[in-house]
Amino acid sequence: MEKIEHIGIAVKNLEASNILFEKLLGVPHYKIEEVASEGVRTSFFKSGPNKIELLEATKPDSPIAKYLEKKGEGIHHIAFAVEDIVLEIERLKGEGFVVLNEIPKKGADNKRVAFLHPKGTNGVLVELCQEIKES
Amino acid sequence: MEKIEHIGIAVKNLEASNILFEKLLGVPHYKIEEVASEGVRTSFFKSGPNKIELLEATKPDSPIAKYLEKKGEGIHHIAFAVEDIVLEIERLKGEGFVVLNEIPKKGADNKRVAFLHPKGTNGVLVELCQEIKES
Repeated sequence: MEKIEHIGIAVKNLEASNILFEKLLGVPHYKIEEVASEGVRTSFFKSGPNKIELLEATKPDSPIAKYLEKKGEGIHHIAFAVEDIVLEIERLKGEGFVVLNEIPKKGADNKRVAFLHPKGTNGVLVELCQEIKES
Repeated sequence: MEKIEHIGIAVKNLEASNILFEKLLGVPHYKIEEVASEGVRTSFFKSGPNKIELLEATKPDSPIAKYLEKKGEGIHHIAFAVEDIVLEIERLKGEGFVVLNEIPKKGADNKRVAFLHPKGTNGVLVELCQEIKES
C-alpha cells in the first residue's frame, strides 16, 4: 500500500457535486469518465498526491444506486495505490481478508482494481488499484 | 487543500482494529493518542504521504459513540491538510459551507482542526487540519 490513491464519494447529481467540490477543494475536476460495466459515471479532482472521485449511478441496479438508496450520499470507498495488485491480493488473502474480485478488473482512471469485503475491514470498502502502464 | 492528511475510521475496539489494519496496510500503528475533550482514543498508521486514523469512543455520549450506534463501524471523516486554517475557514464560509467550529480546536496528532457540516458537503464530514509548528 503506497498511499491513498483516492477517496470515492457517492453523489446523486454529478454536475451539482462537481460545482460543490470545486468550491471545496479550490480546483476544478480534471476529467469525467463513465465505467459502463459498473453503471457509474465518475469525475476526478486532484488534492496534492491524492484524488477525490465522485460517483454517480447511471443505472438503477448499479452498486452506487443501491448504495445511495441504502445509505445516502457520502464516502463510499477508500482506494490504496499498490505496485503489484496480483501480489497484494495474494498477500491480503493470506492475512484472511476476503477479496470480492480475485481477478483484477478495469476501473476508472486507467487502473486495474480489486475490492475487499467491508465485513472484514471494519465496515470500510477498500479498493486496491494499480496504474496500467503503457507497454 | 494540500492533500488528504488522513482518513478517520470509527471502530468499536481499538486493539482489535490495530491488528487488523496492521495486516491490511502492512505497517504497524505508530502512535496511540487520547483526545479526552472529544471522548476518543485514536491510533495512527502511515500510508505514504497520508495517514489512517482509527477512532474508538471512550465515553457513551461522545461523537464517535453516537456515530457507531447510528451507522456502525466505517469511514467517519476525511481530513485535508491546509496551510492556514483561519484563512481556509474564511474562504469556505465565503463559498457557502457551514463550519461546525469557526474557531479551530486542538485535535489529535498535533493539529489545529475544524469541521464542515456534512449537510453541505454531500454527506461527507470534512476536517481541515493544520500542523502546529514549534515556535
